[in-house]
Amino acid sequence: MTDKIRVGIIGYGNLGKGIEEMSLNYPDLSLEVIFTKRDPKSLNASVKAEHMDNLKNYVDKIDVMLLCGGSATDLPNQGPLVSKLFNTVDSYDNHNKIPEYFETMNISSKSSNKTSLISTGWDPGLFSLNRLLSQSILPKGDSFTFWGKGVSQGHSQALRRIKGVEDAVQYTVPSQEAINLAKNGKGKDLTTKDKHDRICYLVVQEGVDKQAIENEIVTMPYYFADYNTQVNFISQEEFDKNHRHMPHGGFVIQSYKNEEGINQAMEFSLKLDNNPLFTASVLLTYARAVFRLNKEGKFGAFSVFDIPLSYLSDKSSETLRKELL
Amino acid sequence: MTDKIRVGIIGYGNLGKGIEEMSLNYPDLSLEVIFTKRDPKSLNASVKAEHMDNLKNYVDKIDVMLLCGGSATDLPNQGPLVSKLFNTVDSYDNHNKIPEYFETMNISSKSSNKTSLISTGWDPGLFSLNRLLSQSILPKGDSFTFWGKGVSQGHSQALRRIKGVEDAVQYTVPSQEAINLAKNGKGKDLTTKDKHDRICYLVVQEGVDKQAIENEIVTMPYYFADYNTQVNFISQEEFDKNHRHMPHGGFVIQSYKNEEGINQAMEFSLKLDNNPLFTASVLLTYARAVFRLNKEGKFGAFSVFDIPLSYLSDKSSETLRKELL
Repeated sequence: MTDKIRVGIIGYGNLGKGIEEMSLNYPDLSLEVIFTKRDPKSLNASVKAEHMDNLKNYVDKIDVMLLCGGSATDLPNQGPLVSKLFNTVDSYDNHNKIPEYFETMNISSKSSNKTSLISTGWDPGLFSLNRLLSQSILPKGDSFTFWGKGVSQGHSQALRRIKGVEDAVQYTVPSQEAINLAKNGKGKDLTTKDKHDRICYLVVQEGVDKQAIENEIVTMPYYFADYNTQVNFISQEEFDKNHRHMPHGGFVIQSYKNEEGINQAMEFSLKLDNNPLFTASVLLTYARAVFRLNKEGKFGAFSVFDIPLSYLSDKSSETLRKELL
Repeated sequence: MTDKIRVGIIGYGNLGKGIEEMSLNYPDLSLEVIFTKRDPKSLNASVKAEHMDNLKNYVDKIDVMLLCGGSATDLPNQGPLVSKLFNTVDSYDNHNKIPEYFETMNISSKSSNKTSLISTGWDPGLFSLNRLLSQSILPKGDSFTFWGKGVSQGHSQALRRIKGVEDAVQYTVPSQEAINLAKNGKGKDLTTKDKHDRICYLVVQEGVDKQAIENEIVTMPYYFADYNTQVNFISQEEFDKNHRHMPHGGFVIQSYKNEEGINQAMEFSLKLDNNPLFTASVLLTYARAVFRLNKEGKFGAFSVFDIPLSYLSDKSSETLRKELL
């Protein structure tokens, strides 16, 4: 018998594995079970693995279910079904369809007195919180979100499709010049292209024409042609040593300049060696909030905007005021 | 007749004047009146000025009163009295006494169905929010708050007391070396002293022994002796041109390193040309939240930890999800 918050995972990719690892850091949470569409015996997980078909057997055994599927196909199907059975947290990140997904999840979770937090992680999630905070406080200022340094899967694949390329990775890197403009209230007209450089690391076959490959990359329409693109050729050994991680990060900047030239800048930034591991941390933290909201009878769908930050902590309000205010 | 949120100011120092200036940026707020202990005719304000004795006449004319007095003597007296008459927002920043002040304000505001937000601004306030957020998400990480670059009034006064000094200002500057250690998970043992340098600008009388003054400063116990202190002698002209502003800022950093050396860093930073003007922005933004909490029947004292960030915006939840999530 435990009085911990009992959490489960649906989906055992990078995010699900990240939650499994990070869950040990939250003493009030207990990871109970991982659900998969595959053969549960194939998972080699540290906790019990179950097939998705057995989900209903856990209705009284799990307080919050963390949905770790993708936004393209998994979550639009899973979310509405699972949120009828469990309180849920997910990282739905298809920005254009968030309003629609919210409405669907609101109906499904309300129908059975459950609570669902949608679209958390770092963007959407913590970056969204900071856009709201900074744009509310400095409403006449300029707002910027920069992404990177981080791996872009789509661009890395475009590189790997080039003839003679054995392996490749592309990092999206925010331009330092653009960041400085934004911080000093001079970045109003910056486009996403102005704001980001593209750094490529390639392993190529012996004897290929490197100059031709570089030309093909920097002139590739849409992917690279309009960007400041840097191409680096490296050995397989260096690639394996330095470019197998999943770093990411970025900035949310708000800057306001009054008529006398007084500049006020707010910035929130993340520098992550491992992107899915951090998203896992955020989902686990919000599991606390969802558990508490549900206990208070607050049913339906929520976003990070709706939740007081005190709900993210395992400390009492008195302790938080004393130690952190 | 207006359906704007009607705000009033008590106290017309730097913060009160900042609110007067910034209030124009919030289209849903209307600054109605400024209260002072001085002769109201002496204020030369852009809105009506009233003596504190007339406070009770405004009970039905002001939705939220912004308390702009100091934490040492003004707020401990004013807060409990004013919060019996009005919803309030204040920037009480005596960290050690916050729990006590919260209890007092909670009793006084609850006694007449009012709502009070205490201790907002940037620290306490936005920095507190970010300490809570980052320590909840990365609980096994290391936490740092750096202050500066900013003017320290106490240290500036200590410089001005030295014989031969005509004018002086002291900037507290976070050490770049310490910031780098903190961001890379190596800052566990840093003290406040390790983390901050002290940069002094002095205007001195002609013919004084500058070396003697510098020695007196860098050996001054408590204020400078234990810090990396830099002393600059400048002309009155340069002082007036470059050192009459009130810049401040700082960082809240949380960094977590797992056993494999994967590092995750969260950072929130402010770079403010004008400290009181920014605190004014924060108080105005939280006036919205207090107004709304009171309308919902949520009475008593609150801190920034208790309030969903959506309450800081004049936009609907639907719009926020669509535009900022």
